[in-house]
Amino acid sequence: MDIGFIGLGNMGAPMATNLLRAGHRVTAYNRSRAKAEPVADQGARVVDTVAEACRGDAVLTMLANDDAVEQVTFGGHGVLASLPPGATHISCSTISVDLAQRLTAAHADAGQHYVAAPVFGRPEAAAAAQLFVVAAGAPAVLEPLTALFDAIGQRTFVVSEQPHAANLVKLSGNFLLATVIESLGEAIALVDKAGVDRLAYVDILTATLFDAPAYHTYGGLIARQQFQPAGFAATLGLKDVRLALEAAEELRVPLPLGSLLRDRFLTLLANGGGQLDWSALATLAARDAGLAAHHPA
Amino acid sequence: MDIGFIGLGNMGAPMATNLLRAGHRVTAYNRSRAKAEPVADQGARVVDTVAEACRGDAVLTMLANDDAVEQVTFGGHGVLASLPPGATHISCSTISVDLAQRLTAAHADAGQHYVAAPVFGRPEAAAAAQLFVVAAGAPAVLEPLTALFDAIGQRTFVVSEQPHAANLVKLSGNFLLATVIESLGEAIALVDKAGVDRLAYVDILTATLFDAPAYHTYGGLIARQQFQPAGFAATLGLKDVRLALEAAEELRVPLPLGSLLRDRFLTLLANGGGQLDWSALATLAARDAGLAAHHPA
Amino acid sequence: MDIGFIGLGNMGAPMATNLLRAGHRVTAYNRSRAKAEPVADQGARVVDTVAEACRGDAVLTMLANDDAVEQVTFGGHGVLASLPPGATHISCSTISVDLAQRLTAAHADAGQHYVAAPVFGRPEAAAAAQLFVVAAGAPAVLEPLTALFDAIGQRTFVVSEQPHAANLVKLSGNFLLATVIESLGEAIALVDKAGVDRLAYVDILTATLFDAPAYHTYGGLIARQQFQPAGFAATLGLKDVRLALEAAEELRVPLPLGSLLRDRFLTLLANGGGQLDWSALATLAARDAGLAAHHPA
Amino acid sequence: MDIGFIGLGNMGAPMATNLLRAGHRVTAYNRSRAKAEPVADQGARVVDTVAEACRGDAVLTMLANDDAVEQVTFGGHGVLASLPPGATHISCSTISVDLAQRLTAAHADAGQHYVAAPVFGRPEAAAAAQLFVVAAGAPAVLEPLTALFDAIGQRTFVVSEQPHAANLVKLSGNFLLATVIESLGEAIALVDKAGVDRLAYVDILTATLFDAPAYHTYGGLIARQQFQPAGFAATLGLKDVRLALEAAEELRVPLPLGSLLRDRFLTLLANGGGQLDWSALATLAARDAGLAAHHPA
Repeated sequence: MDIGFIGLGNMGAPMATNLLRAGHRVTAYNRSRAKAEPVADQGARVVDTVAEACRGDAVLTMLANDDAVEQVTFGGHGVLASLPPGATHISCSTISVDLAQRLTAAHADAGQHYVAAPVFGRPEAAAAAQLFVVAAGAPAVLEPLTALFDAIGQRTFVVSEQPHAANLVKLSGNFLLATVIESLGEAIALVDKAGVDRLAYVDILTATLFDAPAYHTYGGLIARQQFQPAGFAATLGLKDVRLALEAAEELRVPLPLGSLLRDRFLTLLANGGGQLDWSALATLAARDAGLAAHHPA
Repeated sequence: MDIGFIGLGNMGAPMATNLLRAGHRVTAYNRSRAKAEPVADQGARVVDTVAEACRGDAVLTMLANDDAVEQVTFGGHGVLASLPPGATHISCSTISVDLAQRLTAAHADAGQHYVAAPVFGRPEAAAAAQLFVVAAGAPAVLEPLTALFDAIGQRTFVVSEQPHAANLVKLSGNFLLATVIESLGEAIALVDKAGVDRLAYVDILTATLFDAPAYHTYGGLIARQQFQPAGFAATLGLKDVRLALEAAEELRVPLPLGSLLRDRFLTLLANGGGQLDWSALATLAARDAGLAAHHPA
Repeated sequence: MDIGFIGLGNMGAPMATNLLRAGHRVTAYNRSRAKAEPVADQGARVVDTVAEACRGDAVLTMLANDDAVEQVTFGGHGVLASLPPGATHISCSTISVDLAQRLTAAHADAGQHYVAAPVFGRPEAAAAAQLFVVAAGAPAVLEPLTALFDAIGQRTFVVSEQPHAANLVKLSGNFLLATVIESLGEAIALVDKAGVDRLAYVDILTATLFDAPAYHTYGGLIARQQFQPAGFAATLGLKDVRLALEAAEELRVPLPLGSLLRDRFLTLLANGGGQLDWSALATLAARDAGLAAHHPA
Repeated sequence: MDIGFIGLGNMGAPMATNLLRAGHRVTAYNRSRAKAEPVADQGARVVDTVAEACRGDAVLTMLANDDAVEQVTFGGHGVLASLPPGATHISCSTISVDLAQRLTAAHADAGQHYVAAPVFGRPEAAAAAQLFVVAAGAPAVLEPLTALFDAIGQRTFVVSEQPHAANLVKLSGNFLLATVIESLGEAIALVDKAGVDRLAYVDILTATLFDAPAYHTYGGLIARQQFQPAGFAATLGLKDVRLALEAAEELRVPLPLGSLLRDRFLTLLANGGGQLDWSALATLAARDAGLAAHHPA
């Protein structure tokens, strides 16, 4: 296929590379052109405007947040203004349910297609084409994209005909990760204060019922109190929990754990920890338990 | 070794069988003798009193709760009164930190040894000698028990020289499992109300960052709303969360998630769900979201 | 003074009447002109456009929510476009801190003044000129308004030179009222289940340490389970708690009670109680306790 | 009447004095006799044993906690062993529902009567005979005690025929006071961070909807950050919240606010604030908001 690719960051660059390797033609655009150069070396055509990236069968956006996606899509000479009728906007960014709904409506009004395809996985998984793709949209629109998703991920889950459902699933995944962080923070504070070694404790958990990537990754970071550099900053953690809570409020779904997480993130930010990894949330359980040394400040 | 084994229930019977298979001599006692008979077929000597089970090098207790352990240990002709000086009481039951501390002190006063060795794993793991043993006690006392632990489990973690620390680790494990149940309950209520298929959603989670037994087991039960028969009843879930909270209070460690779980369990019990599987906690998030059909009552 | 008055609802009409009684000239505007007629009988000049109400020394807005204030102020021929330089917009509505900040900036840019003066009290207090006025703004702008505030209220509190601080105080007051409702709901569920008479219990509270209007009003409604007609609907309660949480998030202040209240309101709305009085929040504590008869549905 | 009075502390001494003034004969016992001397000056007969205080028509106990009441009642030569059949034990202490139930049963077995009569009010109210008495017990037993209650309080509320219900009401009152402290802590942290003066803010609240002793007392202490000397220590606050939670658990009543308060008290104690006034709970909301100066440590 002939694909535009907007957003060549830590995730986007390897994803675009994998599309090229699978034989697709990629026209790449990044706000700062330098970031697009490595993809050019892999065979992509690098362009200077969003509009030029919108002339193929589909354009894929992989951007940092709602603001970036809104600007690229609704801005002058943006995706909405540039994409031909019948072409598809594939949105892989982690964005709000609200924005996903507005994008769906706007593209439909313009005679274009819109699908959501947020991904689970870190940059290494993107490089290895081992992402998990959570896709949602009209079946007839998604069907021809199967080869694209196969090129970037190990497995694709189609969750709904409504694109925003995929974004909700993605946000719920980050919500669940944050609950893992909080629960580990509390459990580790408890056993630590009783004299149990923190690392040995995490070993027990991950050898037994909690042998999952989420517990390995965050259990290790929390036990070692290694919150810098941030893999995912606390400010972003707050943003995603807030987006989950907003989507839940719209649906009238209370999320008591989400509320607790929101308060924890606010506490962390109010006390100077916004740029730490979001697993630094665990320092608050330690601080409340009087384990002062574990405080980030 | 020459071992007494008290408590031949769903967990105790296969554990005793594995000790026999490993070549140990086992003298078995169960309050209702009938439950001990299958172990007799495997070569155990079945006796009619606690005292008769206390004449070897060590006696292992695997009982339902604090009350049972207290009665067997402190009661007339109980373990404390019957165990020879220098012999060891190995307590594998999930009991309170407070009782563990009282047992440690009482056995020390009597010139006996006491170690805690609670286990992680369900009856099938016990049958396959694949339990995880979390042991704590004086190193010189634990060392000769290594062969016993190897006979019943796949791996032994020694967490402290103080026996009660092992009980705290065990309780914290059940606390973490309950947080998994609550977080899945909230996330599933959220995506369900947005029209995403519950089973497909759990598939996504367990294929990706949450590929751990805890998520497979409880994600499946919650998505299918299959809360009977109870693998672990809600009343027992409340008991273990309460024991974790009591131990934490003694240590001055607040556990906000534990508090939330305690309230959820009380709500479930107040509304008639005490005998359901503890994963029925997830029905409360669904009910609060107005997904009435998912209510257990 | 020569005052425009926009918004002649249950609160606005008696406030405007009291301004007339105190000798001020009032030019009144209401979207549906019929509601302004009673004030005409008291001597107000009723006009058909916002612009006509903006020709005096000041214009006072008393509207239902952010949307109404935004439309009246920023809309075509609105307050911002119509108020003469040097005149003052007095905003008495309960609005968000965010909107208050935008109004402050916009009026300053237009060479106009802006002060916030939200009020505490119900329609009866407005009729009796017994409101409490919480004012904030530049001292030189507030000073000449003293007579106006004295005409509508029993006491004026000046809390800050920044108008939005008054809105925050007002929102925090509604937050505190909601905490009273929740705490009474929990306490009454507790003693009710123990067989204590609900009304007698509230009598004890209000005779002793809780002898305040908030406890008399809401204790009575909750004990009698009298949630219709709504004095203040649950949907509005959710809105105000959300505005308090949003302002708090902006300031990086976690409000755990606010989070709990938000979840309670969402639960009430998800289960069909949005049009009940916000004190119906108390039915949730009763329901969770298994006191099913007290559920609104 | 001929009354024994056990416990002549800050509350007991003025209560005994008021009984004497009303014409009753009082036989007073206190563990440290010195504290009983001032009551002797008022006309009481001071004795050296619990038994000697149990020879009249009734004995009133006003002690610090469950332990003290248990020891005085069940100990050798205690109230239970000494009170004549048909005489009444009037328990005014704030004790657990569980102990109240055990006392009721034990006195009934001994052919004695037991009533609960915990009081609301501080030492000054006790001195002025302005306490509120919350009484519960068999009507025929309570009736002749009316004159006693009138001598110590301004009003008596009879809440149940089951004595423990009065203790539950008393505990629920302290639970409600703690919710006032927490809610004020959060609201004050919020407006403080926005630049509003803390004392002025409390003035607004107590002039308006929150004009009750609870808000005057705790609003003032929190606004002035005056947590020493403790009127009621945080350790006692934790104890009463725990007793309320235990009684609620027994009744299967979740108290989410109680859970939050318990976690707050644990945090305060873990960080060295156990001897501060329980209103120091409010420092935690300030600390979480990054208002570091307000931390007690």
